[in-house]
Amino acid sequence: MGSVYGKNIHVSIFGQSHSPAIGVVIDGLPAGFMPDMTALRAFMKRRAPGQSLLSTQRGESDLFEVLSGLSEGRLCGAPFAATIKNSDTRSGDYAGLKRTPRPGHADYPAQIKYRGAQDAAGGGHFSGRLTAALCLAGGLCMQLLASQGIQIAAHITQIADIFDEGFDPLAPDFAALQEGCLRVLNVEAGEAMAQAIDAARLAGDSLGGVVECAALHLPVGLGDPMFDGLENRISQAVFAIPAVKGIVFGSGFEAAGMRGSQHNDAYMVQNGKVRTSSNHHGGILGGLSTGMPLLLSVAFKPTSSIFLPQQTIDLDTLQPAPLTLTGRHDPCIVPRAVPCVEAATALALFDAYLDYHKEISYATE
Amino acid sequence: MGSVYGKNIHVSIFGQSHSPAIGVVIDGLPAGFMPDMTALRAFMKRRAPGQSLLSTQRGESDLFEVLSGLSEGRLCGAPFAATIKNSDTRSGDYAGLKRTPRPGHADYPAQIKYRGAQDAAGGGHFSGRLTAALCLAGGLCMQLLASQGIQIAAHITQIADIFDEGFDPLAPDFAALQEGCLRVLNVEAGEAMAQAIDAARLAGDSLGGVVECAALHLPVGLGDPMFDGLENRISQAVFAIPAVKGIVFGSGFEAAGMRGSQHNDAYMVQNGKVRTSSNHHGGILGGLSTGMPLLLSVAFKPTSSIFLPQQTIDLDTLQPAPLTLTGRHDPCIVPRAVPCVEAATALALFDAYLDYHKEISYATE
Amino acid sequence: MGSVYGKNIHVSIFGQSHSPAIGVVIDGLPAGFMPDMTALRAFMKRRAPGQSLLSTQRGESDLFEVLSGLSEGRLCGAPFAATIKNSDTRSGDYAGLKRTPRPGHADYPAQIKYRGAQDAAGGGHFSGRLTAALCLAGGLCMQLLASQGIQIAAHITQIADIFDEGFDPLAPDFAALQEGCLRVLNVEAGEAMAQAIDAARLAGDSLGGVVECAALHLPVGLGDPMFDGLENRISQAVFAIPAVKGIVFGSGFEAAGMRGSQHNDAYMVQNGKVRTSSNHHGGILGGLSTGMPLLLSVAFKPTSSIFLPQQTIDLDTLQPAPLTLTGRHDPCIVPRAVPCVEAATALALFDAYLDYHKEISYATE
Amino acid sequence: MGSVYGKNIHVSIFGQSHSPAIGVVIDGLPAGFMPDMTALRAFMKRRAPGQSLLSTQRGESDLFEVLSGLSEGRLCGAPFAATIKNSDTRSGDYAGLKRTPRPGHADYPAQIKYRGAQDAAGGGHFSGRLTAALCLAGGLCMQLLASQGIQIAAHITQIADIFDEGFDPLAPDFAALQEGCLRVLNVEAGEAMAQAIDAARLAGDSLGGVVECAALHLPVGLGDPMFDGLENRISQAVFAIPAVKGIVFGSGFEAAGMRGSQHNDAYMVQNGKVRTSSNHHGGILGGLSTGMPLLLSVAFKPTSSIFLPQQTIDLDTLQPAPLTLTGRHDPCIVPRAVPCVEAATALALFDAYLDYHKEISYATE
Repeated sequence: MGSVYGKNIHVSIFGQSHSPAIGVVIDGLPAGFMPDMTALRAFMKRRAPGQSLLSTQRGESDLFEVLSGLSEGRLCGAPFAATIKNSDTRSGDYAGLKRTPRPGHADYPAQIKYRGAQDAAGGGHFSGRLTAALCLAGGLCMQLLASQGIQIAAHITQIADIFDEGFDPLAPDFAALQEGCLRVLNVEAGEAMAQAIDAARLAGDSLGGVVECAALHLPVGLGDPMFDGLENRISQAVFAIPAVKGIVFGSGFEAAGMRGSQHNDAYMVQNGKVRTSSNHHGGILGGLSTGMPLLLSVAFKPTSSIFLPQQTIDLDTLQPAPLTLTGRHDPCIVPRAVPCVEAATALALFDAYLDYHKEISYATE
Repeated sequence: MGSVYGKNIHVSIFGQSHSPAIGVVIDGLPAGFMPDMTALRAFMKRRAPGQSLLSTQRGESDLFEVLSGLSEGRLCGAPFAATIKNSDTRSGDYAGLKRTPRPGHADYPAQIKYRGAQDAAGGGHFSGRLTAALCLAGGLCMQLLASQGIQIAAHITQIADIFDEGFDPLAPDFAALQEGCLRVLNVEAGEAMAQAIDAARLAGDSLGGVVECAALHLPVGLGDPMFDGLENRISQAVFAIPAVKGIVFGSGFEAAGMRGSQHNDAYMVQNGKVRTSSNHHGGILGGLSTGMPLLLSVAFKPTSSIFLPQQTIDLDTLQPAPLTLTGRHDPCIVPRAVPCVEAATALALFDAYLDYHKEISYATE
Repeated sequence: MGSVYGKNIHVSIFGQSHSPAIGVVIDGLPAGFMPDMTALRAFMKRRAPGQSLLSTQRGESDLFEVLSGLSEGRLCGAPFAATIKNSDTRSGDYAGLKRTPRPGHADYPAQIKYRGAQDAAGGGHFSGRLTAALCLAGGLCMQLLASQGIQIAAHITQIADIFDEGFDPLAPDFAALQEGCLRVLNVEAGEAMAQAIDAARLAGDSLGGVVECAALHLPVGLGDPMFDGLENRISQAVFAIPAVKGIVFGSGFEAAGMRGSQHNDAYMVQNGKVRTSSNHHGGILGGLSTGMPLLLSVAFKPTSSIFLPQQTIDLDTLQPAPLTLTGRHDPCIVPRAVPCVEAATALALFDAYLDYHKEISYATE
Repeated sequence: MGSVYGKNIHVSIFGQSHSPAIGVVIDGLPAGFMPDMTALRAFMKRRAPGQSLLSTQRGESDLFEVLSGLSEGRLCGAPFAATIKNSDTRSGDYAGLKRTPRPGHADYPAQIKYRGAQDAAGGGHFSGRLTAALCLAGGLCMQLLASQGIQIAAHITQIADIFDEGFDPLAPDFAALQEGCLRVLNVEAGEAMAQAIDAARLAGDSLGGVVECAALHLPVGLGDPMFDGLENRISQAVFAIPAVKGIVFGSGFEAAGMRGSQHNDAYMVQNGKVRTSSNHHGGILGGLSTGMPLLLSVAFKPTSSIFLPQQTIDLDTLQPAPLTLTGRHDPCIVPRAVPCVEAATALALFDAYLDYHKEISYATE
């Protein structure tokens, strides 16, 4: 198991990189909502490959087909299901990877776990391609959240050693996000990042980076204590994106070096609303939303698939085996990971939102 | 909801800081195992308060009473249940906190979420006291894992601006851990940390820090793809510990600045076993264990409860309200958080281990 | 696993017949509700043993102690936990049952499943005693449902070959229920049943029976399609009661002999409300409540523990072994099962009710 | 929600009667198993419509397409997903049913639950067509169980007032099952049933019936106490089949009229194996399998869709509205329900089997 998410919605993702199709089923979406399919396709396109030299040249259009869950364009209460065909597959590129696992990939532990029965082509179910299904589910949830006034946006704050500034923690400005090749706040940073990615590509190497995500206008009290706090829920969704190595909320690891008198965010009232004068807590206390902007950052390792020669072993002979990859791979996954982080965050927040609604509707008792 | 964890085991934690008792029920533990109750009590004591000036002076012994789940000292297949009495409670210390929420605490969002019905005394269900139940469950899982050869240990790598070194990622040395006042690798670092904590205590302020945790001798292939990867599972458990602001696996945020050719861990064979020559991946690829040491680090913010004057508001009048806390609070939660991180990691790994067993036992087909 | 129930509430039952205590944890109950503890104790008393010669003479008071989940008498959003001490245990009565399993009990399959580690005393976790925890959880849910106008009541319609009439399916009359020794609609039937039970007791034998349960004033549309229909949810809860052999809704097995033109319940409007002119469907269509009275009946086998000599085997020698039970056992479990059926139904309906609330609160979109 | 099943496997069913496709995703199936697709198609055909005048004339071939989960014909550890196209839909037949709900259908409660957004065509997600997806999932589980030696078969024991004999509870003879038009033990009973169904069809009316199902060669100790007993699990699956009104295990409601001395099944040893001399318990005690044949019977109401004039109301005007259905409907759903009961039972048993494996594999400890 592993490809199932949610307590109130129920997301089930399927597919392998080279199976006939990938897709997603979502049970528990509210009946009556009319998804904006044009917007959803536009969201999917942000993740789709082949749009510039910065990403893999695999030419998937990521067009999805809705199989069920709609009636006259509205969610009808039945599970929503959609598929995305895998058209441009070249399984031959991956022959031999079962014996000589790629460093940094799931090849080796998958080989042991599934005792050789796994689909190794293109990474199988472990492929980043599966994030298309994640984005489909998350993009739908983003629309559902937006209908309740909740906005989510992510951007790149780091590629290799090039940094962009982060959101203003008190007032993230989504309008300032650049919608060019790379989603950043400052164009210059974006250009430097693009150059670095292109240089890595030419070198047959790869780069990592950091994505920051914010959610605005959450109601106060969303989430739950202990295991279902917003951090827990969001983490469970975000680590579903391949290559994620860490996640922080608010001040993150910087909090470790601060004193309580610095870190505590004082309460104040502004325009009749309770706010905090700083936002080290990142919008979450005790697992619950505080009404301040929710802020998280996610670290991505450099793409594992590089074209430089690498050292691996032959699992049959247990002898060293040199490895030189072919195929089509992103020199840096971070640009395409931005909508994935938004999608994962949206899944978690919408799932929590349904709990929140349930509870609040009991309020008058 | 929120206080329930696990897919194969089923952990249900209950209690408030000042309720008659806290406790835990665990369904799904394997029948026949005989827990070492002396060792479990010793583990619980590592978390218990009042053992030095570095922690809260609340004098809870954290002695637990087993109500069910055992027969002649062995797990009998029935749910394991145990309670810990709350003896040394002084609810009076917390009067008024419903109106004037403490900065950095769950007071305010809990007030909104539960519409004033929440138990505010001592933080109620959001109290760090609940980690005693987490340690009870996790301590039991550590013993179950140990019976399968899997070891878990955590230590402090940072308090404020004082750092201790981390584990050797290729071979964490658990025997080198100092079992004094603070669990560190180097005594000098521990002493400097202790002095810093004491100084913060005297200043009425608080400190944060970082805990590193390792798990050794995991079988290869433990975990699942996507939402149930080891990172996802461990994160869901670790963020149940109050004050956690971030979690990383392996190279964490440093991975963002590395190139693929640096970060990829080459495969090699050593003593007939498949290993990697470096361990940036932290023992997990594709959500699955690789057999290398599993490594994670957790950031803790400084304790929110400080004795310096703070600024909050009166939720009834929405007017500013100065706040000066009384009560008993840890000047730094990190020393007592070390066993909590071990416990959370153990919960996640044992839960995954049962899945692993299930799958492997199908192997011959 | 097995002792966990619910999707929106989370019920975790623990305990063995002769462990220090049994109990229940319920996460997900709505904050703010003030349970009526006197009424809850009265409900528990309906199930408690030792009240007449018709039930076991084990003298448990079934008094529960609340450990958490309340603040100033109200549900506070934290998990509700309560325990019931096991005081009057005589484990000696059960010595030897691990080797010579009792016919009709879980002794034998439990011995195999848990490989001899199970707690055999009094049936361990399989004991009917665990229904005290079920009643505690269900009794609380009945109060929560009643606060929303939903009523649940059950009664005996059959003991051995003595029948009482069932509810009027169009208008069950809860006020007509006799609250004497046995809960029936007609006193004479109850007296005949009591005599039959007493005769069976004197003969060292036991009797079975049928309990009918109704739920009134359910909103229309409660429940879900397929696996979470009201029948599915209620069945999952009701089969947790030991000795249940079958469950039917509405016309049950009689439906098998009817024609569609007889069975279909025509729609009509009465006092401005949509109703059906008959109620063969028992208040559920497609897994969803229709607003008509929900009706179910549950078959109970005769108590397995009888005092007549029986034939079993010695599991060590695989030789025949005669068995004559001692101990204290109900000659007929049905009278004490009535509140259990109510409790199980309430668990299922309240869990579904929270879903219903969640969905409806999305209505305005 | 509602269309999700399982604890160890995770079945997610989607589709509406007239949506582009229906289908199923199953996560958690064991890697390495090679499904027999020819046998699976043959199993699906037993449920498919249009094969004789006894069933609806809707000409669906029920051919499925596997989208993922296989690699070189074997289950590869990734979720298995398959779809079945809806080709022969005539939505026009169902116009107006939102306003004038059909008696005995989910139309009315679905209208209220989903506030008019539901897909009413052909019953939408409530259609019996969804049982094709159930059979696909269950058929796969039957193969997985068969690979472990566990056999499942069901047959018709009643249509209207015509009865066939049931299985010998001590030794169900699957070879005696007639594979003609109706699956019965005695050809004559089957012929009488077929005539009765045909007569009902000509009269525009419908019939109900009873299906009995048995599972053989279960290991002892499969299942769990309380809420996850085999009865609970099977019931949760079986009530997902439309038109089910009741379920019994072993002696069922007849148990209510028996004495303990009659009902208790004495243990004996036969050919070195522990057995019972009778099988009133139906192979389950305490929720656990005993190794004896597991026996259950399921009651089906007569098909709700009849062609005789019926009485309903107009939900807009709340005025009476006569209703005469058109479209294509089974005069008796029972013949096609036989594989559905097998499939539902297989889902439940295979899910429990994975738990069983997990536990047993811990045995040596």
